[in-house]
Amino acid sequence: MSKYVSLTEEEKAYLDSKIVLRKYLKGQYLVQQGDICKYECYVVSGCTKTSYVDDLGQEHIIMFSIEDWWTSDMASFINQSPADFNIQFLENTELIAISHDVIEDLYKHVPKLERFFRQVVEKAFIASQKRVVRNLSMTAKDRYLFFKEQYPEIEQRIPQYMVASYLGITKEFLSKIKSQLIMDQ
Amino acid sequence: MSKYVSLTEEEKAYLDSKIVLRKYLKGQYLVQQGDICKYECYVVSGCTKTSYVDDLGQEHIIMFSIEDWWTSDMASFINQSPADFNIQFLENTELIAISHDVIEDLYKHVPKLERFFRQVVEKAFIASQKRVVRNLSMTAKDRYLFFKEQYPEIEQRIPQYMVASYLGITKEFLSKIKSQLIMDQ
Repeated sequence: MSKYVSLTEEEKAYLDSKIVLRKYLKGQYLVQQGDICKYECYVVSGCTKTSYVDDLGQEHIIMFSIEDWWTSDMASFINQSPADFNIQFLENTELIAISHDVIEDLYKHVPKLERFFRQVVEKAFIASQKRVVRNLSMTAKDRYLFFKEQYPEIEQRIPQYMVASYLGITKEFLSKIKSQLIMDQ
Repeated sequence: MSKYVSLTEEEKAYLDSKIVLRKYLKGQYLVQQGDICKYECYVVSGCTKTSYVDDLGQEHIIMFSIEDWWTSDMASFINQSPADFNIQFLENTELIAISHDVIEDLYKHVPKLERFFRQVVEKAFIASQKRVVRNLSMTAKDRYLFFKEQYPEIEQRIPQYMVASYLGITKEFLSKIKSQLIMDQ
């Protein structure tokens, strides 16, 4: 955080006393669709998948979070209402987890954090809007190339069908794109 | 703003001295794709359309803003970088416009506004994610019903083809949905 807001030693100590380091195993969930999302989380190590399961039981992958990303079902976290998304751990994962009560308390005691979290949300919102634009404007091949840039080395960490789901294409079409890219080289 | 943060008389006066009321005519643009978005705006009266024109020249409507909504190309505004979107006025429109320099100055002089704008962005982000979920999970008919709820009476204000574009369906399919709904009554 100190990259974005300058905190006094006292503020740092207060923050340290309030945030919690949590560890999850691969396969566990931070939140499941319909439950309340308890934490806003910073990924220290590991990987999460945010997805939506539609009425036909099909899963749509909205985003991944890796090291140095934030993750939560924000609507659920802020309003303490049922979550729209599942957030599952794709690897054993270490998080800094901030609960709803704690974040409100932090805003009261360390008002500078309002600025920090405003910037976190701004970035998330921009990323979400840019994803809409990419889906409207880029070919699947270009979306795949962008994906590799945005999540470097994540492909070695997660199954291909998840990459395909995130890109909104079939696994078979993704293989075809990858063969094409190898041939292009 | 005083609904969300309590400001002193002095803070209110400072705010008043900094923000600008701007008027635009129907057809004008707040920002065009590729230009820098100069203002973060609160709609006092009127209506705007945020859209993206793809490489084939097809326009995709991302959102509308009516009274009491905020509008800007946020990535462009924050980073003062080329805009991804067009924001056009669909009616003569009155806005409270806050420029990039002014907003940074306001954060410095009235830090409480960090909280206010954090909440504005949180709501925008949640709305954007919920739109993704609706597109994945709802039928066109349900999306149309939701649209009518979200933007009450906007249908009397904008052309049908724009409603269809926002919903990601053809004008013909939208007519079909509307006839169906009348028959259902």
